[in-house]
Parts: sequence; structure tokens; C-alpha cells
Amino acid sequence: MSASSYKGLEERFARLGRLRDAQGILHWDRSVMMPSGAAEGRAEQLATLDVICHELITDPEIGELLDAAEGEALGDWERANVREMRRAWIHASAVDAALVEAKSRAASACEMAWREARPKADYAIVLPYLEEVLRLTTEAGKAKAARFGIPVYDALLDQFEPDARTAYIDPLFDDYGAFLPDFLDQVLSRQAREPAAVEPRGPFPVERQRELGLRVMQILGFDFHRGRLDVSLHPFSGGASGDQRITTRYSEADFTSALMGTIHETGHALYEQHLPSRWRHQPVGGARGMLVHESQSLLLEMQASRSREFLSFAAPMMREAFGAEAREEAWQPENLLRLYTRVSRGFIRTEADEVTYPAHVILRYRLERALIAGDLPLRDLPGAWNEGMKTLLGVEPPDDRLGCLQDIHWYDGAFGYFPTYTLGAMAAAQLFDAASRVIPGLPAAISRGEFKPLVDWLAENVHAKASYLSTQDLLAAATGRPLDPAVFKAHLKARYLP
Amino acid sequence: MSASSYKGLEERFARLGRLRDAQGILHWDRSVMMPSGAAEGRAEQLATLDVICHELITDPEIGELLDAAEGEALGDWERANVREMRRAWIHASAVDAALVEAKSRAASACEMAWREARPKADYAIVLPYLEEVLRLTTEAGKAKAARFGIPVYDALLDQFEPDARTAYIDPLFDDYGAFLPDFLDQVLSRQAREPAAVEPRGPFPVERQRELGLRVMQILGFDFHRGRLDVSLHPFSGGASGDQRITTRYSEADFTSALMGTIHETGHALYEQHLPSRWRHQPVGGARGMLVHESQSLLLEMQASRSREFLSFAAPMMREAFGAEAREEAWQPENLLRLYTRVSRGFIRTEADEVTYPAHVILRYRLERALIAGDLPLRDLPGAWNEGMKTLLGVEPPDDRLGCLQDIHWYDGAFGYFPTYTLGAMAAAQLFDAASRVIPGLPAAISRGEFKPLVDWLAENVHAKASYLSTQDLLAAATGRPLDPAVFKAHLKARYLP
Repeated sequence: MSASSYKGLEERFARLGRLRDAQGILHWDRSVMMPSGAAEGRAEQLATLDVICHELITDPEIGELLDAAEGEALGDWERANVREMRRAWIHASAVDAALVEAKSRAASACEMAWREARPKADYAIVLPYLEEVLRLTTEAGKAKAARFGIPVYDALLDQFEPDARTAYIDPLFDDYGAFLPDFLDQVLSRQAREPAAVEPRGPFPVERQRELGLRVMQILGFDFHRGRLDVSLHPFSGGASGDQRITTRYSEADFTSALMGTIHETGHALYEQHLPSRWRHQPVGGARGMLVHESQSLLLEMQASRSREFLSFAAPMMREAFGAEAREEAWQPENLLRLYTRVSRGFIRTEADEVTYPAHVILRYRLERALIAGDLPLRDLPGAWNEGMKTLLGVEPPDDRLGCLQDIHWYDGAFGYFPTYTLGAMAAAQLFDAASRVIPGLPAAISRGEFKPLVDWLAENVHAKASYLSTQDLLAAATGRPLDPAVFKAHLKARYLP
Repeated sequence: MSASSYKGLEERFARLGRLRDAQGILHWDRSVMMPSGAAEGRAEQLATLDVICHELITDPEIGELLDAAEGEALGDWERANVREMRRAWIHASAVDAALVEAKSRAASACEMAWREARPKADYAIVLPYLEEVLRLTTEAGKAKAARFGIPVYDALLDQFEPDARTAYIDPLFDDYGAFLPDFLDQVLSRQAREPAAVEPRGPFPVERQRELGLRVMQILGFDFHRGRLDVSLHPFSGGASGDQRITTRYSEADFTSALMGTIHETGHALYEQHLPSRWRHQPVGGARGMLVHESQSLLLEMQASRSREFLSFAAPMMREAFGAEAREEAWQPENLLRLYTRVSRGFIRTEADEVTYPAHVILRYRLERALIAGDLPLRDLPGAWNEGMKTLLGVEPPDDRLGCLQDIHWYDGAFGYFPTYTLGAMAAAQLFDAASRVIPGLPAAISRGEFKPLVDWLAENVHAKASYLSTQDLLAAATGRPLDPAVFKAHLKARYLP
């Protein structure tokens, strides 16, 4: 083959990227707009697009083109693009179409069973479906592991966070597991000694919450010509390249979670909005992986916004939006900070504070490894879950709704995803720390609502890099060293035990 | 090939149908939800899907499968399905992939330019884009004409209304063109002698208009589990099979047009919602063509709803929705009927009454035939438009916003579409006349807001037939004879010169 092999690959992946964009809009529509009766038809549309994408990427010519392109004279980004193409190609071609389809069907059936099982707290309903999902996931993992020459669970990790390996994650998580019990005790007893936070009294009209969220998105630099804010049951950031769509959900009784949720999803969306347009639809031009993605949402939410500086800036906006609450003390930044940094031993991951959140993740990480390895039979999952919660957080869920039925991930076939949440939190702390060192007066800027210096730094040091560097090289280039969990712990100590 | 050729075709067309559904949602999103900066990306997504659909349907095997299937023992619907598959296959395979993609891209770019040009009344903005669209449309039309062995413009017509031919349309339109001037003079002088209609005074809040529209949709039998109502600049009915999405636009100064627009689009949507689910995604299971489609919207709007019966029923709902208007006479059915059947020599097709509407269509039909034939250069279009308006309706648009920039069709690449509006109006009159003869007490039912007998008759005699029969056979089966324009003229005489 000639020097056009690389160009041929670019064209094929551009087509794939555009189909993925189309799917992104169809997924968004399903959660935000679609009438209920259209669910089956939409599933068919998405499955058809999945099959077509799989056919495109497993075309036998792709392997030949990759071999040829690797021998061509290419620029650095082109070479990195070929590297990412090969990764995507191995992930796709390791698994045959029949297994892909069986896995997709099993996940759909299991997800439906889970929707019934969760409110009833009845794990038995979903168990046979989950057995099938786990079996097929393990089969796919083994096929990928063989192609990559890595352990099975690592192959699953690699789908969500390229190059993530258990050998690297184990010591990080063990270290946090050892750090947490004592630290959590100290934080809780310190918070018990402080005055109780004053809860602003609602109702907080949805339209006001939405306006406040839009204002904050504007302040953070969200480009509304290339994105939207809407409502869905489960908030997410999605859409297509150049068309970033984030969602939130509003409770009239509590405005705090929609606001922070909007900031969180804006962090994801800014990453996507700042990806280099030259490499749009190419593998090297996509977000690096779920670790870096989560670092961008958590940096904006946990690091920048659950801070005295941001809350000082936001307090008058909140008071203006929700004037009905007359008690002045509710709008004091100090009080808002107490509200937004409350720590507790809870059952539910998605409601957890940043101190206990890693415990939820570590539990899932250990359990899913054991499940994939065949060391933990699925029928023993509820017991192992509750035991793990007791050990890690000192609480035991009263039922499986508050235990192993709470998250959709496994029931939807996503094993290997959970660790990226906590690795992302650690990267967020490290990136924010680095930004604070090089941007003069960053805290003061945030307290004036000036996010441009921070977001520009992220755009240059993280977003613009797309998938050109590995996650570790990206962190090293941006902060001077690879992922260093000590920065996250230092952040927690500074914020919760000042 | 064996008896499985037909089944093989069904599978391929099902895949195609699901991709067309995906495109339907992406088109809807573009007009209703998409942020402006995402236009280019969306055009790429749609073009990519167009190319993939084109590849599917022009797969060399399709021709062989069609030949084989035509020799197989098939039921009546299967045989009709093969007939429609062949028609679709000829339309698609006549044009190569590069032309399909270029046409799709050119249309997207032109449509976006038109969105800018129309409010500015600046035809020059859109002219170069339209040149490209016309050039590519003509090229595609020539290729199809050669395959079907028909004239170029007939090949374009056939895309929207199978078997429609200029040789059939010319005398119908010439006849109406001859009938109109005298009739219009008589109607206008009659209306001038009647008391002037009392215009209800606004503002009419958008939210109230929307609620009224939703209520009327419910009354007409729209299934909200499989559809939505939204807002767009240019109202349309679209979406996917089982997910019918109609749009309207609201003016706070006038509620009448949004309401009738909603009824009109509901007529389109009901047709789609009642197509036989057994044949979903198959060519024989789709709507017959744009003539029948338009007949369904116009039957509900023009025949059933702009009537004394419906307006008697709707008057109290309108009064309730827009209580601010205190003058009782504004809400008298007689007054509403005057408002809703006012005839005038206007510039805008979509605002035209049913008497002058055909003149707008005849103008476009003649102009687009000249454009495709190369007899009218595009730079002369505004002048030719204004001249035609003067001849047909006796008025001359003051600018191109009120002239040749008013409709999206050409800018979106749809040449050969316009005639179906007026052919549809004629079919609507004929179908409503037939329904009135067989449904006992239909006018009385409508005056009670009971649309079920009418809609059930349409569902059985039109919607459930899908593309099983030709348009003319469908009309003959439902009404006893093929399209008969005399019924439309009789309807106009009865309503406007009673």
C-alpha cells in the first residue's frame, strides 16, 4: 500500500465519528425528548447504527491499512492517531458480531429487570439476567485480554480508561482505604462541633433554578452556540462533537444539587467543546478517557465551586434568584460552604461527598474484580456488598435498593468503569493544584466569578491535548508529575480539617 | 436464488427504514433543538447517513434479489412490497454516491443560508448556494429520467408522488387557472358585501395557544405516547415511525394560524400513526406519497375544521383559552367562520386561503419546471416570481421575503414537491365528500367535537392501505373514482358562493 493508507484510515474513522455523533444526539433525545412509546423503535435505530459502526471498524482492510500506515512518514499527531486507531480496532475486532449482539441484548433485558428489581429491593429478580450479562462480559473481556496480552479485568478497564491497570490502581486504592477510617472520624467529629448549617427554605421555582444554572454556565465559559442545557431523569453530558448537551434535574425543595450538577456537567462539556477541531472525528481528537473526563467535571465542581471563593461570589446570585428565603444567614458564604461540604456515612454513591465517595468506588472495584475472576458467585454479591460497606464506611445498607441494586452500571454491562471516578477525583485535585500555582491570584479571581484564567489553562493543558498523550503523560506535562494521590489527600485535609 | 430472496430484501429494507427513522429524528432536532453552531456537524451526520442508505439500497445484490423475488410465490402485500422496493431501488441506483453526498451537503448549506437570507429579504445571500442545489438536482433528475424513461421533471415529481406526470397535471392546473380569476372576483365581492369579521384582540399568550393546540390534537386522536408537539420556524410533521413529531409557530398577535397549523400537521401525523405496524420499515408500509399525505392534512384542516360545525364546537374552547377578549361577538361561530374562510390576494403561500392557494402552487410548478429545463436562469427567479404573482393573483410582492424566499423547499433541494399540495387539496375534498356520504350524521358529530367516526374511516380507507395501492386506485377504492377535480371546485362554490 502507498502513502495514502493513513488518509484512507482518516476517512473511515471520520465516517465512524459522524455516525457516533448521530448516535449521541439520538441518545440525548431518548433521555430528554422521546415519547415513551417510541422506546422500542429507538433501540432498533441505535442497534442498527451499532452494527454499522462495528462493520466499519472490523472491515478486514482496516488491519492492513494500519500495518501500512505505521510504516508511513507521519507527523506526531498522525502517529498518535494511528496508535489510537489500532486500540479502537483491537477492542472492536476482538469480539465477533454475534457476541456483540448477544451482549447488547442481555444488557437490555437485564436493565429492564433491574428497573423492576430496584424499587422492590429484590435482587432475586435480576440475578439470572445479571448472570448472563456477567458471562458474556467475561467472554468479551477474555477475547480482548488475549489480543492485548493483559489480564481480563485490565482489558475491561482499558475500554473506559486506556492503559489503566489493576497493578497500578491497587496500591492507590489500598492507600486510600487505609487513610479513610481515621480521617473520616476526625472530619465527622469536627463537623459535629461546628454550628449546624441553615437549610434555605424552598420552594425554589424550577424556572429560577434553570436561569441561575444558565448564568453560571455562561460564567464558566460554556458556548451556547454549540450546546444546550435541558432536563433528564439522570443528568449527563452528551450530544455530538460541536453540539454539547448537558442535562440536570430540578427539585423545588432543594436548589443546591441541580446547581452543582450543572457545574459538574459543564466541566465535561467544556472538555468536549475545547477539543481540537482539526482532529474532529479522529480517534486522536477525542477525549482521552473517563479518568480525564471525570477530572474535568470534578475540578469545576469539587475543586473550584464547592469552595469559599466561589460560594462568596455565588451567594448574592442565589439570594437574588430565590428571594423568598428571608433568613439572611442562609445566604452567608460560610453557611453555604457548610451546606456544600457536609460529610456523612451514606449508602448511595451518587449522593456521597468527596471524602466518602472513593469508598463507594473501592467497594465496587473490588467486587467487580472478584466477579470477573469468578472468585465471587453472583448470588453472594448482596452479602459481600454489605460486608464491604461495613468495613469501608461503617454502615450496612438495610436492603439491596440502598446496596447492590443502586447503580445501573453492572446491569447495563459496564464492568471496569467505576475506578475512573476516583482516579478522576485525584487527577482533579492535582490539576487544580497545578493551575493554582501558575495562575496568579486564582482564588481571588474565582471569588469575583472570573473563570477564564482557569478554563483557559485547562483548555491549553488538558482539552487541546485530546488523546495525543497518554493520561499519565498528559498529567505529567500539565502538573510536572504523573498521577499523585497525595495531592487529593492534601486537598481533603486542607478543606475538611483546616 | 431461492424463496429466501424476498426475506433477504425485507431484512435489507428494514435496516434502511431504521436508518431513515434515525435521520427523521436528526432532521427534527435540527429544526427544533439544535444550537446554531452545530449546523455544519449535523449536515455531515445527515450526509453520512444518506451515503450509507444509498450504499445499502444500491448494493448490486439488490437488483438480483428483486429479479428473483419477482419470480417467487408471494402474497398480495409482499408483491406490492417488491414493486415499491424496485421503485425505490431505481430512484437510488440511478444516482451515484458522490452525487448523493454532494446534493445532501449542498442542500444543508443552502438551507442554512436561506435561514439568514429570508429575514433580510436578500436573495443574493442564497443565490450561489441555490445554483449549486439546482445544478445537482438537475443532474440527479436527468439520471433518474433516463432509468425510468420519462422526462426529467417527471422523474423529480415521481420522488414525491409516485406515477405523477406533468401530462396529467397540466390540464388540471390549466383548468384551475382558468376557473380562478372569475371565481375569485365573485368571492371577493361577495365577502366585501358581508359584515367585516371581528378580529379577536390579543395578545394571545403562547402557553395558552399551546394548551389549546394540545387539546385539539387530543380530540383529533393524536397518540401522545408516540409523538410530540413543538415549535419551529417552518411548521412540519416529521420524526420517525412510531415517533411522530409535529411543529407549529405561535404569534401572540394571532392565535388562528397556529391552531389551524396544528390541526393540519396532526392530519399528517395521524396518517403516519395509523400505518400498518406489520409493514413498518418496509416500502409497502410507508405513506403512499405526498399527494395522499397532503390530502390528510387538508382534509382535517380545510374540509373538517374550517367549517361552521367545527368552529361551533371550538368557539367556547377559544373563549376559555383567551378570556381577555371581552367582546362576545368575536367568539360567535359565525364570526369565527368569517375569520377562517376569509379569501384574499396575498403574497404568502402558507397563509393563503384554499381558494388562492392553488395559484401559489401553479406559480411554483411553472417556475420550477422552467428552472429544471434551464429555461429560467436563477438570477431571474425573483422577477419571474413577481410577474407570475401579478398574472395569477394580481398582486406583486414588495420584496423577496414575501416572494421567492418564502418557502424552504427549493433551498432544501425539493423540486417537484409543490404540485402535491394542490393535488392533495383536490383529493381531500373528494375523500371528505365520500366520508360524508357514508358516515351518518358526520357534520353533527363534528359540531360535537367527535372526530372518531371520520378518523376511523380515514384510518381504514386511507391510512391502513399504506403504499399497497397506487394513489389513483386508493382514491377509487375509497371514493368510487380516481382523482376528480370537480369535487374540489364544487366544495369551493358551496362554501364561498353558497
